[in-house]
Amino acid sequence: MRDANTVFHLAIPARDLDEAFDFYVKKLGCKLARRYHDRITLDFFGDQVVCHLSDQFDEEPQMYPRHFGITFSEKSQFDNLYKLAKQREVTFFRDLSTRFEGLIEEHLTYFLQDPSNNLLEFKYYYDPRMMY
Amino acid sequence: MRDANTVFHLAIPARDLDEAFDFYVKKLGCKLARRYHDRITLDFFGDQVVCHLSDQFDEEPQMYPRHFGITFSEKSQFDNLYKLAKQREVTFFRDLSTRFEGLIEEHLTYFLQDPSNNLLEFKYYYDPRMMY
Amino acid sequence: MRDANTVFHLAIPARDLDEAFDFYVKKLGCKLARRYHDRITLDFFGDQVVCHLSDQFDEEPQMYPRHFGITFSEKSQFDNLYKLAKQREVTFFRDLSTRFEGLIEEHLTYFLQDPSNNLLEFKYYYDPRMMY
Amino acid sequence: MRDANTVFHLAIPARDLDEAFDFYVKKLGCKLARRYHDRITLDFFGDQVVCHLSDQFDEEPQMYPRHFGITFSEKSQFDNLYKLAKQREVTFFRDLSTRFEGLIEEHLTYFLQDPSNNLLEFKYYYDPRMMY
Amino acid sequence: MRDANTVFHLAIPARDLDEAFDFYVKKLGCKLARRYHDRITLDFFGDQVVCHLSDQFDEEPQMYPRHFGITFSEKSQFDNLYKLAKQREVTFFRDLSTRFEGLIEEHLTYFLQDPSNNLLEFKYYYDPRMMY
Amino acid sequence: MRDANTVFHLAIPARDLDEAFDFYVKKLGCKLARRYHDRITLDFFGDQVVCHLSDQFDEEPQMYPRHFGITFSEKSQFDNLYKLAKQREVTFFRDLSTRFEGLIEEHLTYFLQDPSNNLLEFKYYYDPRMMY
Amino acid sequence: MRDANTVFHLAIPARDLDEAFDFYVKKLGCKLARRYHDRITLDFFGDQVVCHLSDQFDEEPQMYPRHFGITFSEKSQFDNLYKLAKQREVTFFRDLSTRFEGLIEEHLTYFLQDPSNNLLEFKYYYDPRMMY
Amino acid sequence: MRDANTVFHLAIPARDLDEAFDFYVKKLGCKLARRYHDRITLDFFGDQVVCHLSDQFDEEPQMYPRHFGITFSEKSQFDNLYKLAKQREVTFFRDLSTRFEGLIEEHLTYFLQDPSNNLLEFKYYYDPRMMY
Repeated sequence: MRDANTVFHLAIPARDLDEAFDFYVKKLGCKLARRYHDRITLDFFGDQVVCHLSDQFDEEPQMYPRHFGITFSEKSQFDNLYKLAKQREVTFFRDLSTRFEGLIEEHLTYFLQDPSNNLLEFKYYYDPRMMY
Repeated sequence: MRDANTVFHLAIPARDLDEAFDFYVKKLGCKLARRYHDRITLDFFGDQVVCHLSDQFDEEPQMYPRHFGITFSEKSQFDNLYKLAKQREVTFFRDLSTRFEGLIEEHLTYFLQDPSNNLLEFKYYYDPRMMY
Repeated sequence: MRDANTVFHLAIPARDLDEAFDFYVKKLGCKLARRYHDRITLDFFGDQVVCHLSDQFDEEPQMYPRHFGITFSEKSQFDNLYKLAKQREVTFFRDLSTRFEGLIEEHLTYFLQDPSNNLLEFKYYYDPRMMY
Repeated sequence: MRDANTVFHLAIPARDLDEAFDFYVKKLGCKLARRYHDRITLDFFGDQVVCHLSDQFDEEPQMYPRHFGITFSEKSQFDNLYKLAKQREVTFFRDLSTRFEGLIEEHLTYFLQDPSNNLLEFKYYYDPRMMY
Repeated sequence: MRDANTVFHLAIPARDLDEAFDFYVKKLGCKLARRYHDRITLDFFGDQVVCHLSDQFDEEPQMYPRHFGITFSEKSQFDNLYKLAKQREVTFFRDLSTRFEGLIEEHLTYFLQDPSNNLLEFKYYYDPRMMY
Repeated sequence: MRDANTVFHLAIPARDLDEAFDFYVKKLGCKLARRYHDRITLDFFGDQVVCHLSDQFDEEPQMYPRHFGITFSEKSQFDNLYKLAKQREVTFFRDLSTRFEGLIEEHLTYFLQDPSNNLLEFKYYYDPRMMY
Repeated sequence: MRDANTVFHLAIPARDLDEAFDFYVKKLGCKLARRYHDRITLDFFGDQVVCHLSDQFDEEPQMYPRHFGITFSEKSQFDNLYKLAKQREVTFFRDLSTRFEGLIEEHLTYFLQDPSNNLLEFKYYYDPRMMY
Repeated sequence: MRDANTVFHLAIPARDLDEAFDFYVKKLGCKLARRYHDRITLDFFGDQVVCHLSDQFDEEPQMYPRHFGITFSEKSQFDNLYKLAKQREVTFFRDLSTRFEGLIEEHLTYFLQDPSNNLLEFKYYYDPRMMY
């Protein structure tokens, strides 16, 4: 288990902050902590994501070597976010799929794509020991 | 507070996996979860960092728009990691400094640099509400 | 998640303290912490509600802009309180209903009315991320 | 102790939503969860406050019978918020004072005033059993 | 919720310490913390019960005004203890019964009797708010 | 550690319920959960004490073999209750004293006496492993 | 319940550290914390196991008097590890069996064997009070 | 952090069960869970140690490759046990010493010896990340 009082933080590029606000707050349901002229800071599933206004975003979304996301401990959390993303028409880079079917590492995964081509992966493992 | 059973995961490029193992496990004291031919997965302060073998690493380390790290809730955690990094001669991209001195947002910060030029920022806020 | 050791407190008007005691303690099953000549303090589902003797209560109960209550994390908590309120013949301002049916924001809600026309809303969201 | 997964929610009037956003998010450091044309929802110290656009706000701020706020379990939390409020020039309805000095009920308190004349009280008790 | 680090302690009479050990440790599955010539101390479901050698025990077991026990939060805990008590042929003062059937206060209960005629009641409420 | 969701319950005699309410709620600061014609139920430091109207109380308070109370994990909790008891002029059966001085079992203790001659012991151990 | 911040540590012999790494990390899915020339240290289900290079291992695996392992609180944890062990062809010293069938002590158990003939037992009790 | 509901269990040899009871319960302050003709089971600092009657104990206590114990997260826990061991004249195999002085791995350690020559190591790290 991780420490509930610690926060992971991640800085990513955003080509436009209103777009980023729209994607992370209005669509994904993250909370806005602060807004400055050059960045917004988000409570992203309990951790912190900062979108920095930047022109160094990827022109094409790429799965490797950079992406980020959440591995949920409850399947309902994974399913609820999937339902939200479908309902609110978030762009899927790769839809729901199963990896390592039949193996102990089996997990469910989907990739979302933010307006600056950052990729977000959400996962659920049947055996929580496999999350790392 | 975040959920202790959820895991944030981040994929980053590594130009060499032995180098990455050396930096994250031997130096930073992270735990190795799995090793494959093309990546290693780490328990990074309770969350997951995956180093993917890749030639798409940054030639020059850049503070913005991409970096990641931990915001600690206890000053001793922040200080212990600083001591470890100095003792084990980890490369500092920017040494210990104070930001927003005198303001409620005041915090301590330092940036480390991994062998593939990924930048890691560690922070400590005097007021934990400012962590987001 | 909120901090289990912090307490939210809310002061509301009561036209009569015995009535308030009867409603909050005998009917709703809240605990009495203290009783003074001009107020009673309650452990209201773990937070604090203080009923101040006052003639500034609303003559007519109004849903907006003021009401308060609890959003439960477990459906059984929501259902148990509903059963209690029905059995003990608490006044409902609005009976059980569903809002945003089919959407990710879908939740169950009912409004109770205390003897001083304060309105209490109790809610349950199928996706707990939508509680805020 | 209260349940960390439950949320207290409170609806209050706001004469202007931008003003409310400015007060609660930019000044007090609460997080914005959602924004609609007629209300904003906030993660207020872990609980939920909803500001409803309304002309039914109090013309004059009044301490009784209605106010709300947080009773902190750690003195540093109380002190940090006080420092923030002073630094960011939040309006104090009543500055820091001690109540019941020398008694077991002794606590520190200050009242803030939002732009719609809602009053917020923050408290710290030396004996946490007295919080209710 | 109660504080997990606090311990409730209860001192009760025992006419014979070996008998008490047999009842509480061998039968009920409590843990022995310490044994002195005039008392044994027990970890009784996480709290402390001390059996003092004494001739002031009740000649006849009486349900009122004195008895003690545990109210479980999980039905399986209640059921498991019942199964244990039946299997190990613990004396029941009153077998499993339901109180307040159909009401929100409905709960399951049984009373055990120790060799010194102390009565132990174990309970399970369908609505955990009714436990107090 | 004990389970935070379980409740220890203890039934004791009270010769008068108003007296018991005065002692446990007004003086000791426990919360009243329910009041019936023949008993009151209390949230006693997170566990449950029920005072049953009864003429079977002890004529003389006796330390053995029956008493009950709380062993605190924080010294400030022990000290705060002592201060409260002195300030509110609760009857002490035995004032603050140290037992097993210099030994690992060393602890602080005092005994209070309720109006029906039930004795309450509150303790603090310097080594929390000795609490059982 | 045990303290989540404490760590049990166990030192055991390993005739070869690569073998030990292979067994504990690659097969059992434990995390490698550190590797020295004469030992590896492991995060073994949250506790610490250290494999010391040694020729004092048992030539023949023996169930008594020495073995170690984990008693799980959730049956799914027990089942997941069993599935993992079968899939990854870990050596079973004794396959899945039930002990004390029908009694309150009933539990499921299997024994694994590491390359240095250390035996690992994993258990699940239907009544968690029986785990000690 | 480890899971508070899981239990590590360790079986060790004991040449005499009364001796083992005396050492683990009367001296170290562990709790006795069960006693059979051929073993005793103990709540050892929250985990389980089982002493099996056996003649396969070590004739000479040896630090490597087998020993076990607890790494405490609070220095007071480490110090309290040291004080207890000295006061109750437990046999020390190696008295209090510091390892890796000045390094981030610096920790305090002492080894106790049980009557069957099993060695118990207790540790405290200044940086808790080094515990694994």
